[in-house]
Amino acid sequence: MTEWIQALRDAVGAEKVLDSPVDLIAYSFDGTFEQVLPDVAVLPKTTEDVAAVVKVAAKYTVPVVPRGMASGLAGGSLPARGGIALSLTRMNRVLEIDRENMTVVVEAGVVTADLEKEVAKVGLFYPPDPSSNRQSTIGGNIACNAGGPRCLKYGVTGDYVLGLTIVLADAKILKTGGKPIKNVVGYDLTSLFVGSEGTLGIFTQALLRLVAAPKFVRTARAEFASLDDAARAVNAVLAAGIVPATLELMDETAIACIEEAMGLGLPLDVEAMLIVETDGSDAEGVVREIEAAARICRESGARQVRVARDEEEREGLWRARRSVSPSLIRQAPNKLGEDITLPRSAIPEAVRRIKAISARYDLPIVVFGHAGDGNLHPNILFDRRDPAQREKVEQIVGEIFQAALDLGGTLSGEHGIGTFKLPFMRQAVGSASLDAQRAIKRALDPQNILNPGKVLPEP
Amino acid sequence: MTEWIQALRDAVGAEKVLDSPVDLIAYSFDGTFEQVLPDVAVLPKTTEDVAAVVKVAAKYTVPVVPRGMASGLAGGSLPARGGIALSLTRMNRVLEIDRENMTVVVEAGVVTADLEKEVAKVGLFYPPDPSSNRQSTIGGNIACNAGGPRCLKYGVTGDYVLGLTIVLADAKILKTGGKPIKNVVGYDLTSLFVGSEGTLGIFTQALLRLVAAPKFVRTARAEFASLDDAARAVNAVLAAGIVPATLELMDETAIACIEEAMGLGLPLDVEAMLIVETDGSDAEGVVREIEAAARICRESGARQVRVARDEEEREGLWRARRSVSPSLIRQAPNKLGEDITLPRSAIPEAVRRIKAISARYDLPIVVFGHAGDGNLHPNILFDRRDPAQREKVEQIVGEIFQAALDLGGTLSGEHGIGTFKLPFMRQAVGSASLDAQRAIKRALDPQNILNPGKVLPEP
Repeated sequence: MTEWIQALRDAVGAEKVLDSPVDLIAYSFDGTFEQVLPDVAVLPKTTEDVAAVVKVAAKYTVPVVPRGMASGLAGGSLPARGGIALSLTRMNRVLEIDRENMTVVVEAGVVTADLEKEVAKVGLFYPPDPSSNRQSTIGGNIACNAGGPRCLKYGVTGDYVLGLTIVLADAKILKTGGKPIKNVVGYDLTSLFVGSEGTLGIFTQALLRLVAAPKFVRTARAEFASLDDAARAVNAVLAAGIVPATLELMDETAIACIEEAMGLGLPLDVEAMLIVETDGSDAEGVVREIEAAARICRESGARQVRVARDEEEREGLWRARRSVSPSLIRQAPNKLGEDITLPRSAIPEAVRRIKAISARYDLPIVVFGHAGDGNLHPNILFDRRDPAQREKVEQIVGEIFQAALDLGGTLSGEHGIGTFKLPFMRQAVGSASLDAQRAIKRALDPQNILNPGKVLPEP
Repeated sequence: MTEWIQALRDAVGAEKVLDSPVDLIAYSFDGTFEQVLPDVAVLPKTTEDVAAVVKVAAKYTVPVVPRGMASGLAGGSLPARGGIALSLTRMNRVLEIDRENMTVVVEAGVVTADLEKEVAKVGLFYPPDPSSNRQSTIGGNIACNAGGPRCLKYGVTGDYVLGLTIVLADAKILKTGGKPIKNVVGYDLTSLFVGSEGTLGIFTQALLRLVAAPKFVRTARAEFASLDDAARAVNAVLAAGIVPATLELMDETAIACIEEAMGLGLPLDVEAMLIVETDGSDAEGVVREIEAAARICRESGARQVRVARDEEEREGLWRARRSVSPSLIRQAPNKLGEDITLPRSAIPEAVRRIKAISARYDLPIVVFGHAGDGNLHPNILFDRRDPAQREKVEQIVGEIFQAALDLGGTLSGEHGIGTFKLPFMRQAVGSASLDAQRAIKRALDPQNILNPGKVLPEP
């Protein structure tokens, strides 16, 4: 083992290679409860550093596990089989903002909110907004094809990736894509690498598409006595040709948690609340759209709809949505947040099944998420010191996935597969898909050194 | 040879297998000047038929070349190495329209305009609008990731593909994706197959995303004495946060051709015209957007801007754009339409270089295209009966591609690579990319039976 670590030191410089116990612990976590120690952590500064690391890893057949800020929720950045934890956080520069073509080139370790701030300075807008955007890096976002509330209107991370610089398993540097928006020149490697969770190559830079920053925004909150009515409102808004920036759902359990934690005066006798936001460059149009959405919510059975009149009221309406996750801590010491996606029409039935699962296992499950694109986050509240509860959670997760699959949905809309969802992959995608994916993995990483044991279950 | 053809007849029924000389000629053309005879043409009716054909092809190592209506412009559907011309035109059913989830399931052989009409009946909208949409099939559109004028606002074909049914090279049937809009469950196989031009698998069905049909549309035409001003106007409109449905450019050569053919009263003393169209569900917003776009065009130096006041005037404004291709026939017996894409900012310089190439070779090149997304169609006018002109055209195409690559652009935005652009692939994407693409091709089609000789040049 010391031989390959020495080779790493020779390749990138000893100061970038850490293997003290305390350093290894620092790189042994992600956003889940799991912990796995790497043999060594490496902190590259350049694409060439990364290529040098992969060259050593390839020579000695050592796993390389790329990570950004390790906020992932599926175990994807944990060094499951030891080896090298490759942290890209020192590669965090914004390299070029091209105002005319509305593009930006960033290193993979840039924190997403920093990128957003940087381009906002010149009136540009990077729309994807994972809730973790103050912690997570753009490289991690790309690795998981992260989404967020705004993705209903604007699309997910992958929709903004025009090109990638990738270190492949043979240490070659691949550049995909370019500034042209349309590009049908060979296979769409960019899209193949987006969402591949570090198993096909290591992203070091990304060329991202930007849009003009919307100048106006309006927000409304609608309360529904019936969850079905809320779901119907979501469909009716979209069918009317309104494309809200966000269309967020909270179920009664979520509302109760927030209210207990924050005392915002939320109604405790409704089954669901929606938060709708419209935005754009035309003030009157944005106002008319939110009013049309509000009207449709009322027509679909909303008991009350409030459109924020100013930024303060808007802030008030959002406070509830943003309080969901923090408020859960008061209910139980731990939570496990899942990430199923569904055909929109299946949302009410999915929530009902999740409620039934919760009742059967006697553990609270809070449901909220991005109703407009059918992406729900059921959060199971529990105490992980209690082995019986831990076991229940495992079974609950399985049942939630089963419900999603039965309803034509799937395992993840934003978080990815990592190791956590491996047992459900075959059922989710089928064996023909797994075979094809494994063939691609073998073709691009024949030694299986790039984040081994993730995304694809062992045959 | 007769043995494998007999095996095909046994597999799918003799009535689906054609090998008379006249039938073979019918399946020997595409939208280019080239002609290559297949050994046999097969007309499957079902996914299982396609799988049966591929099984025979795999057993006897015979090329299978899928084709829709064969309107492609890069040679992609020509049976370059003989074998089986697999025409999917009999698989042309719309199988399911899901109004609530706004999706449609179609067979690959549906003509795109028919699909558009079918979903319009229930108020839904399939946006991608390749100019060939009355001839071309959705399967072909997906194989080339086709675009069109509306793709500026709405995105290209691939942005609407939620899932595919694909027959793989081993005759297994792969289903990718599903109705959930967000999906981060393993590698994005759907995107990998989109644009793969039949070289990785044969699409038999597609699950497509739809949107609500825009209720209102407004159109403007702006005339620019200076091409640079027109290009500046394009950028200024987008920078203002306006997202027109279309933003089309015609250069002076295109305008002159149309005027000579149609006598529409177009100005012959301008360098460029733009056609801008806004659409949406909010009548006033659509009007305000077109007016804002018109104002920006004027501020950017447009000599005249006309906003159509009614459908008749709108039709009049579009007549010019739609007349480009037909009008070219009056200028020369043949045309070769190219399909370069550029960073938007490079459009003026690209047009200047194309003009210089045209002057140098003394052959007219008409330039028009989708300026908003940087996709230009330089059309070279010539007489292919003249070998000297044919040779010039070949050189001109090479120089146009070189100009596009030099300016940060690339070879194709809509048409694909086929065989025509093979010689430019290495320079366009680099050898690391070619190696990765070849590895993927080998992994999924180790016998190289699926549309061999396309997309990827021989090593």
